Amino acid sequence: MIEFWFEFASTYSYPAAMRIEALTSAAGHTVAWTPFLLGPLFHSQQGLTDSPFNAFPVKGRYMWRDFARVCAKEDLPLETPAVFPQNGLLAARCTLALPEEARAAFVKAVYTENFARGAMISEPDVIARCVESAGQDSGAVLARSGSDEIKAELKANTGEAIRRGVFGSPTFFADDGEMFWGNDRLEDAIAWQDAPRKVKSIGGTK
Amino acid sequence: MIEFWFEFASTYSYPAAMRIEALTSAAGHTVAWTPFLLGPLFHSQQGLTDSPFNAFPVKGRYMWRDFARVCAKEDLPLETPAVFPQNGLLAARCTLALPEEARAAFVKAVYTENFARGAMISEPDVIARCVESAGQDSGAVLARSGSDEIKAELKANTGEAIRRGVFGSPTFFADDGEMFWGNDRLEDAIAWQDAPRKVKSIGGTK
Repeated sequence: MIEFWFEFASTYSYPAAMRIEALTSAAGHTVAWTPFLLGPLFHSQQGLTDSPFNAFPVKGRYMWRDFARVCAKEDLPLETPAVFPQNGLLAARCTLALPEEARAAFVKAVYTENFARGAMISEPDVIARCVESAGQDSGAVLARSGSDEIKAELKANTGEAIRRGVFGSPTFFADDGEMFWGNDRLEDAIAWQDAPRKVKSIGGTK
Repeated sequence: MIEFWFEFASTYSYPAAMRIEALTSAAGHTVAWTPFLLGPLFHSQQGLTDSPFNAFPVKGRYMWRDFARVCAKEDLPLETPAVFPQNGLLAARCTLALPEEARAAFVKAVYTENFARGAMISEPDVIARCVESAGQDSGAVLARSGSDEIKAELKANTGEAIRRGVFGSPTFFADDGEMFWGNDRLEDAIAWQDAPRKVKSIGGTK
């Protein structure tokens, strides 16, 4: 099983979300769709109160161009998001409120609203439409997304992300705990899951 | 021609430097080896006074592991650098003091000292041995590296990197000015040089 950790506001998580099922199932693996919130990580790890792509415009300008190239290469439709970064709290909670078998379709629908349609994914109407497109009852799922249980589960995911050294989205984990960051590393994560390599770790001296 | 902009302290520039000649020459292109200093960019763009991999340990821990995986995949030898980041000033100046045809061999020798042998690339003896391995006279090159002309040329490179939106190393430019950041984008840069794509730029709204 590949663990796919994602934040709905994240640009490069869009191509990762759209690609991961085909790649993992071709390799005989399944996906654990694991939403978390990136804001608390950025703040606690780097002191950021905004996306690094807004905080550092020189990185943002490059990212938008590179992101457009990546999506073009994957034939993924692309529009400028309504806001960046979006507030992905409701979508993350709804992911957890859904039965596991409906999560892939829902997550892909939300990324499509965000990055292919320019919709506001913080709006309940938009999220309701994503829940329905995943074949589920939007009223029931949105109600459940506000429960204490779901709120606690998302908080626990975010805390676990910090403990496991996650610092960005998308992040993938193989069964042996090996961590891969970024859409560019999805193929490597799957190859590792197939056959972990022996790689000597090194560390920088300061 | 592919412009290859690099800082000698940069980890991921090591595999890029070792791979770029074979990949570009197979595609019928040449390389412009263009050293610059990353420190002034990190400071002016992000307020950093150290490598982001030291400033943000969670990113550093991942980078060293990922870097080890990348080098293993490319069969590149790897040792923990003597210090990180190294001071690449002397090596950058010597690159510019060398005739163009000797730069590739010299640059690869310096990266090998830094990341495969754990040597101190700020030491003139180490750099002298890299110059000699590139078939040049180390006394003459080290003397020339301290000239006002070479100092000014390296400063100009660093200033041009800032003007062109560089924020990390390695960075590649195709002839039409398209910019690619990171060892992972080397193949894309060469493909773009072969046949630039039409990609609609988008921009995030804040």
